[in-house]
Amino acid sequence: MSDTGRASALRGGIDLGGTKIEAIVVDRDNRVLGSSRHPTPTAGTPADVAAEMAGALTEAAEQAGTATGELAGVGVGSPGAIDAATGTVSSARNLPGWEGAYPLGPELARRLGTRVAIGNDVQVATAGEFRLGVGRRYTSLLGVFWGTGVGGGIVLDGRPWRGRGGAGEIGHTVIRRGGRRCPCGNEGCVEAYAGRAAMEAHARREIEGGRKSDLLKIMESKQRERFTSAVWEAAVQRGDDLAVELIDGAVAALGAGAASACNLLDVEAVVIGGGLGVRFGEDYVERIRRAMESHLFPGHTMPDVRLVGLGDLGGALGAALLVDADGA
Amino acid sequence: MSDTGRASALRGGIDLGGTKIEAIVVDRDNRVLGSSRHPTPTAGTPADVAAEMAGALTEAAEQAGTATGELAGVGVGSPGAIDAATGTVSSARNLPGWEGAYPLGPELARRLGTRVAIGNDVQVATAGEFRLGVGRRYTSLLGVFWGTGVGGGIVLDGRPWRGRGGAGEIGHTVIRRGGRRCPCGNEGCVEAYAGRAAMEAHARREIEGGRKSDLLKIMESKQRERFTSAVWEAAVQRGDDLAVELIDGAVAALGAGAASACNLLDVEAVVIGGGLGVRFGEDYVERIRRAMESHLFPGHTMPDVRLVGLGDLGGALGAALLVDADGA
Repeated sequence: MSDTGRASALRGGIDLGGTKIEAIVVDRDNRVLGSSRHPTPTAGTPADVAAEMAGALTEAAEQAGTATGELAGVGVGSPGAIDAATGTVSSARNLPGWEGAYPLGPELARRLGTRVAIGNDVQVATAGEFRLGVGRRYTSLLGVFWGTGVGGGIVLDGRPWRGRGGAGEIGHTVIRRGGRRCPCGNEGCVEAYAGRAAMEAHARREIEGGRKSDLLKIMESKQRERFTSAVWEAAVQRGDDLAVELIDGAVAALGAGAASACNLLDVEAVVIGGGLGVRFGEDYVERIRRAMESHLFPGHTMPDVRLVGLGDLGGALGAALLVDADGA
Repeated sequence: MSDTGRASALRGGIDLGGTKIEAIVVDRDNRVLGSSRHPTPTAGTPADVAAEMAGALTEAAEQAGTATGELAGVGVGSPGAIDAATGTVSSARNLPGWEGAYPLGPELARRLGTRVAIGNDVQVATAGEFRLGVGRRYTSLLGVFWGTGVGGGIVLDGRPWRGRGGAGEIGHTVIRRGGRRCPCGNEGCVEAYAGRAAMEAHARREIEGGRKSDLLKIMESKQRERFTSAVWEAAVQRGDDLAVELIDGAVAALGAGAASACNLLDVEAVVIGGGLGVRFGEDYVERIRRAMESHLFPGHTMPDVRLVGLGDLGGALGAALLVDADGA
């Protein structure tokens, strides 16, 4: 603690997901000195989530040989609608009791004894890939995060593009007018076909309607309560008709949505991440790339399509980039 | 000609369209001092088009009391693929003999005796609306030009976004996977449903297949050879079933495509222009706005949706902005 110079160069990063909280402490060169993973509370209030986040970061700081109050700051990638100026998070629907607004930034700052910056989870993960991952070689890119939902992040001319705060909703670009109902309430969005939650809901309806599928059996054998990425992967590997049909539809939807975005933005690269994206890996990135080709405007140059490079810690690393080591 | 200071503050602008060439000369405050409109040659070579463009600008300059060689420069908005650095235009498919590349900039510079800057027609028109038209109050906007095709222009944070040169192809965002064939060769693009040329091709097939419609009769009564914007307007006004159905489909397609773009970019405003956009006017801008609402991501704030403010001269005014009065 006497070496204040060193301590103030360390930063924290927290990725707040629907299933897990990933906390890390990094040094000036973004090397991970400590990390901790906690399950996200599935019941309770936003204050319970904040307490769990503070607990995870405290452990990561201990592992890094410091205390949270000694950090230059902590960045947080959060779902929901973010007010970066006040640190308030609203409508984080996958988190318990979080329909309204909650001052996550101030609450964490109080618990951790350092300043806290909050950003949108997928925007933060996209910035992480741009600065530290497979996006480093590009000046413009689109991040597509294929998981429970389908999120996106945009970097243009080396800078994140956030619009009025909500930019990047590639999961809610329309690929079939009058098509399948999306969890967002609209019809025909990419997420209605490719989001893990939407695919699960659709599959359960099909199974209840009498369609044969091993998805439930696989879920039970893995002692899960949901069709997780691992469940989908196992079902596709054993050739389950329904799973193959839905994952094929997801690939086609992601390809059409990403191609539309590239026709509009003409970025250099598309970076694919998210729970399903990372789980299905390079082969499926190549399948998404081919699905994009049939919808890319003929005059355009095909962008590079790459799998995220930072793996599981990408969200937390991107979050840590929200704060500067010098406390600026 | 003795007042060199005044003369060098004048600039030219040329909007090169598939049916007409619009040329203007403006002063430092972008007031139009002279203008001329020529039909675009429908046969011949790119050199014939360049000669016609030079002729139109020469007349506009005379009307402004100057000569083209006295202008600070001339900006051109052109269809096709533009190489702004060399002034080359390629693949301008609506123009005669223009499948390959043609050095339009150098050729016009030689004929006019001043420097020439070339930009993409819809990007230039969007920049015109942003600087001088209804876009002035915004820092970010999407221009949607509903005409023979459906083109788009993007302004983000006060600056045009061109990607690698091809950004803005909102007409080729996918709104129906596996849907109607688009003139670009892909399936289900916005332009396949909303482009004037695609709607005409579809309507002619329907009529040949026995569907009743007054579109051909209206076209003949107006002594046109194509279903122009005026033909569509007249047919819709008299309640022609086929015309109403196709224009309704165009509105829905434009709404879905614009909403997708707004979900991705979260811009402050959408500006609607183009031959059909200007012809159908405010009522249809409102219809497009309503069609967007059903596809806008629920967490987003609806952008303003406005009709272009510069009218017929918008493209030429935007083109004139490509050159600085000071010769910079």
